[in-house]
Amino acid sequence: MHLKLLTAEDVSRIVKSIGVENFLDNLIARVEVAFANWKQLKVVPRVSFSYASGVLEVMPASDSKWYTVKIVNGHPLNPSKGLSTVVALGILADVETGYPVMVADATLLTAFRTGASSAVATKYLARSDSETLGILGTGAQSEFLCLAVSRVIPLKRIFYYDIDPSAMKKFKVNMMNFGFELVEASNAREVAEQSDVLVTATAAKGRCRVVERNWVRQGVHINAVGGDSPGKTELDPRILTDAKVVVELLEQALVEGEVQNTGRETVYAELWELVSGLKPGRVDDEEITVFDSVGIAVEDWAAITYLYDLATELGVGLKIDFVPSLRNPKDLFSLVALCQR
Amino acid sequence: MHLKLLTAEDVSRIVKSIGVENFLDNLIARVEVAFANWKQLKVVPRVSFSYASGVLEVMPASDSKWYTVKIVNGHPLNPSKGLSTVVALGILADVETGYPVMVADATLLTAFRTGASSAVATKYLARSDSETLGILGTGAQSEFLCLAVSRVIPLKRIFYYDIDPSAMKKFKVNMMNFGFELVEASNAREVAEQSDVLVTATAAKGRCRVVERNWVRQGVHINAVGGDSPGKTELDPRILTDAKVVVELLEQALVEGEVQNTGRETVYAELWELVSGLKPGRVDDEEITVFDSVGIAVEDWAAITYLYDLATELGVGLKIDFVPSLRNPKDLFSLVALCQR
Repeated sequence: MHLKLLTAEDVSRIVKSIGVENFLDNLIARVEVAFANWKQLKVVPRVSFSYASGVLEVMPASDSKWYTVKIVNGHPLNPSKGLSTVVALGILADVETGYPVMVADATLLTAFRTGASSAVATKYLARSDSETLGILGTGAQSEFLCLAVSRVIPLKRIFYYDIDPSAMKKFKVNMMNFGFELVEASNAREVAEQSDVLVTATAAKGRCRVVERNWVRQGVHINAVGGDSPGKTELDPRILTDAKVVVELLEQALVEGEVQNTGRETVYAELWELVSGLKPGRVDDEEITVFDSVGIAVEDWAAITYLYDLATELGVGLKIDFVPSLRNPKDLFSLVALCQR
Repeated sequence: MHLKLLTAEDVSRIVKSIGVENFLDNLIARVEVAFANWKQLKVVPRVSFSYASGVLEVMPASDSKWYTVKIVNGHPLNPSKGLSTVVALGILADVETGYPVMVADATLLTAFRTGASSAVATKYLARSDSETLGILGTGAQSEFLCLAVSRVIPLKRIFYYDIDPSAMKKFKVNMMNFGFELVEASNAREVAEQSDVLVTATAAKGRCRVVERNWVRQGVHINAVGGDSPGKTELDPRILTDAKVVVELLEQALVEGEVQNTGRETVYAELWELVSGLKPGRVDDEEITVFDSVGIAVEDWAAITYLYDLATELGVGLKIDFVPSLRNPKDLFSLVALCQR
């Protein structure tokens, strides 16, 4: 019984070989299907431990065939040490036997699935003629978010802003070959005012107001991605009280999301209810809509199972004997007995 | 930033190189220290998903330096397919950076730490002159349990019984070189009646009575190990109501342990309270004591951190670049950009 190991380099090779846009299209479809099949999945809020240095979280999810766990951190001071703020491991196990079948780097997957989830929400909540995307915060996840959202709206231009000029430069270099007009803004307000779809993905600490209520126009859809842990939010709460707010998983969002500032009565729906057709998404061009995204294990489940399928198809990854292979399954002790039998 | 990979074979090599008894002594000490430092640890009940085929569980724990997660299954029908009932993966991450530093097979560790936890409980709850150990169920964990308990009492003989004769034969072969008198019993009652310390580690399904109240003598200590999930228990509930019952973590034990049959009012203490000196263990030779063990993440934390120390000291394990190494930590997208920079 082999375990497949996929490093970040393996994941990168897989994505490049099928193309970022293809990868995103397929992942968006998989995330949408997962939300549509919500009632067939095991869904729980993640278990999060907080430290002075950051957070460490474990995120299990499952259907009747595949069980996945993602282990992920969030350490805002890591970049000052040359380390990534977020890295992640993904584990896939077979429900039928309980055996693990894959351990993969899930750092790239985390960025991709965060983008894919915002894309699914954007599909149900943005005006279908949205041509202008604004993004606040051009850090590690920004390109993934913009590209993912671009797959579901007729995107023409991107306004972007970050307090770190080098992050804006990096964003521009990474995004310049995808055919969008790129406009570097001089402040957050300019981005917000221009946006049909606005993405907030800052590392702002504390209860911030990266976006003020009077900066956004009627009809905007906001993917609020950066507010994702207790005490860390990005939006002026008056935006939430004036908007149709959709979350991923209510119990987790109330602890980690923007709605920790405004409470359960400001939540219109969980995303799966829109995808399943139980509740309508956007109903007119004047509504403000917000996807209060914190990231849930179901999205990682969709990404990890998709990666496994691709890795299997493409033959990528190291296969190793990892867990014990026993002639007699009840004789675990034989592994440490000094005499060979 | 390397990740250390330890297969079951690596773990086996480490244990053999320092010796099973040494490994157990050190692990028992580490588990005891972990319970003594309970208030410095992050402790939560495990997240368990149940299926027709079995269970899959994820078990995070942490102190201020090391974060561990164990992913473990329990699939009773696996042996009929030549597979182990239980296999496990252990992940270790550095709290300071959030980066994973080790992925290890944790199947052997699970057996060892289950034994070590029963040893710690036995130290505080068994009569100090206990010479006779009885074990019901001689499956994969039985040798680990007996050897671990033997490290804390003046053990002379072991009575054992299993409904599967081949499992008893395997047990005898594995245990014959440790210097104990081994007595194969013809039924469970014979074992229970002879025991100063009794271990129940059967795979019995449902709410069973592997041990009846009138089979056990006054003064016995019971490590009840096999009843470890909802609807799966081993002891006649009258034993619990007549005994001093100690659990690992009350909220988890009430769902998974023997005390799911008898309720919270039958629980005397959590084990850490005994180890910390907050509550006395055994106070006279007549008491019946029960350690209602289901397995908690703190025990895995002790085992995984110990394994990491040994692997580092002995230079065992494959080191690989697993998570992304980025020149610019904010440029995750560079991993999938087609042009190299």
